Amino acid sequence: MSKAITIGIDIGGTNSVMGAVDRDGNILAENHISTKDFPDINDYVKALYGAVAETLDQLGSGYELQAIGIGAPNGNYYHGTIEEPPNLIWDGVIPLCEMMSKYTDVPVVLTNDANAAALGEMIYGGAKEMKNFIVYTLGTGLGSGIVINGEVLYGSTGFAGEIGHIIMVPGGRDCGCGRQGCLETYASATGIVRTVEELMGQRRDDSVLRKVPSEDLTARMITDAAKEGDRIALEAFDKTADMLALSIVNSTAFSSPEAVFLFGGLSNAGKFLFEPVERYVNEKIQSIFKGTVRILPSEIPENNAAILGASALAWKEIEK
Amino acid sequence: MSKAITIGIDIGGTNSVMGAVDRDGNILAENHISTKDFPDINDYVKALYGAVAETLDQLGSGYELQAIGIGAPNGNYYHGTIEEPPNLIWDGVIPLCEMMSKYTDVPVVLTNDANAAALGEMIYGGAKEMKNFIVYTLGTGLGSGIVINGEVLYGSTGFAGEIGHIIMVPGGRDCGCGRQGCLETYASATGIVRTVEELMGQRRDDSVLRKVPSEDLTARMITDAAKEGDRIALEAFDKTADMLALSIVNSTAFSSPEAVFLFGGLSNAGKFLFEPVERYVNEKIQSIFKGTVRILPSEIPENNAAILGASALAWKEIEK
Repeated sequence: MSKAITIGIDIGGTNSVMGAVDRDGNILAENHISTKDFPDINDYVKALYGAVAETLDQLGSGYELQAIGIGAPNGNYYHGTIEEPPNLIWDGVIPLCEMMSKYTDVPVVLTNDANAAALGEMIYGGAKEMKNFIVYTLGTGLGSGIVINGEVLYGSTGFAGEIGHIIMVPGGRDCGCGRQGCLETYASATGIVRTVEELMGQRRDDSVLRKVPSEDLTARMITDAAKEGDRIALEAFDKTADMLALSIVNSTAFSSPEAVFLFGGLSNAGKFLFEPVERYVNEKIQSIFKGTVRILPSEIPENNAAILGASALAWKEIEK
Repeated sequence: MSKAITIGIDIGGTNSVMGAVDRDGNILAENHISTKDFPDINDYVKALYGAVAETLDQLGSGYELQAIGIGAPNGNYYHGTIEEPPNLIWDGVIPLCEMMSKYTDVPVVLTNDANAAALGEMIYGGAKEMKNFIVYTLGTGLGSGIVINGEVLYGSTGFAGEIGHIIMVPGGRDCGCGRQGCLETYASATGIVRTVEELMGQRRDDSVLRKVPSEDLTARMITDAAKEGDRIALEAFDKTADMLALSIVNSTAFSSPEAVFLFGGLSNAGKFLFEPVERYVNEKIQSIFKGTVRILPSEIPENNAAILGASALAWKEIEK
């Protein structure tokens, strides 16, 4: 009997990576193509499917492809489309699933990367037994995947789960979305850098971070400085955790998840982030929800998360 | 053939009201008992079912009871319990559905009043064709019922949908929940009164509202003053709408509803509330959601809403 696998594809601005994944989350073969080398979307889709076929060839016989899952910026699950993606070279609404279906008979499904991360957590990670949870992805921005009754929340448009663009501070920091004060301008790898920049103006503490040009500062440097007891870095984590905790408390009032998973970039800071987040959540949460929501690190390895999340979407589709 | 009906019961601090309701939302018979006259919960439940039986007797033959739905403060749908209700005379966790089931064989289900309002909108009102919407009830506090994929959002605890206790202004107005800056301290019938009180301190405008003792001020008086062009009243509506719009925009980022219904007390102010809310939503919303969410008045008559909502819960239960 042949072994069932799915293909997970992650479409990024520079590269599109893919893997053949079994139901336990083992990546059995990998491949990639350049995204930006194909200004014509038809050429891109042809090359993308070519790479899928190569991946299946690598595996050899004994495997059966069940479905293809794709994670892409502004991916719309309902329509199988990528809509006005800010970081890709194509404009407008791209009917990617339909275009891929010219090459294959298996189901092709698509969502954005944060929703894929939530599915990865549900199918392979720490949320296997959970029906209601949220994944916060703390990278350059803040993405979120919200699971309600075992299903990703897509809402009426397909674009639900934009917690990173909830306005936390009216008139606050400029956001890439054109508005101000969105959560991701505070609680993300980029957000903590901005907090350090502000603190360097406000405080007179010495800090190793003062030796780095502003545009070179990274969340990793801030974590390293925090480990050395750097006061600016520790204060920046405290402020970031405070804002993140407020968001978790407010998300709990909305959907009452049993857990919030923190994933990516900033979450690698470990106790520097998790300890103050837990403390502030406990301090701020409404009494009716006290003790009902756990703050957990993602159990999906970061370097494979994008492929695993996309493949989880494929498993979810055929098992629903 | 006998006609199917449900009984909807609304449990308030003072009275418990009930009605026999057909599938079209016609209330065919009504009844009530005093809530506060029964310090022993066993006596209360006996009297409550007695009143249900009387209601059915009023109807006479030709009707068949399908289910009983109950709306109650801190009602937990999952467990059929009322948990630590702030405004009722009983303490602890009351297993009301189980207790009622000693008297009847039909399903008995329970939720809080805002969730019942959302179900009323879905079964009888403006949300009949909708799968994703939110009802904001703007009374003394701000309650919310969130519908996702045609189901009320209860979350992992049964208490999801507490949008009124999302913290909008950290360190802001004292809230009855023991915290500060919750939405309901700004956007509710009580919230707009507090806004007027603040404005009277900040502004020097004449206002008819200055003639009323603070503790006698009502949202209705503020609406009447706004109709006369009172600047304090108009400014209070503007500020209330601004805060409410921010919440609607943030709720949209979370769950992407196709509509938000405004119900109760403050929503009766009509254009004084709806016009600025729509304007601010349009101004603040993330571009991806522009034009995707409608702000609508509830289509459930306010005086019967509690009974209708509870009966809608009963219909929903037997039709699921």
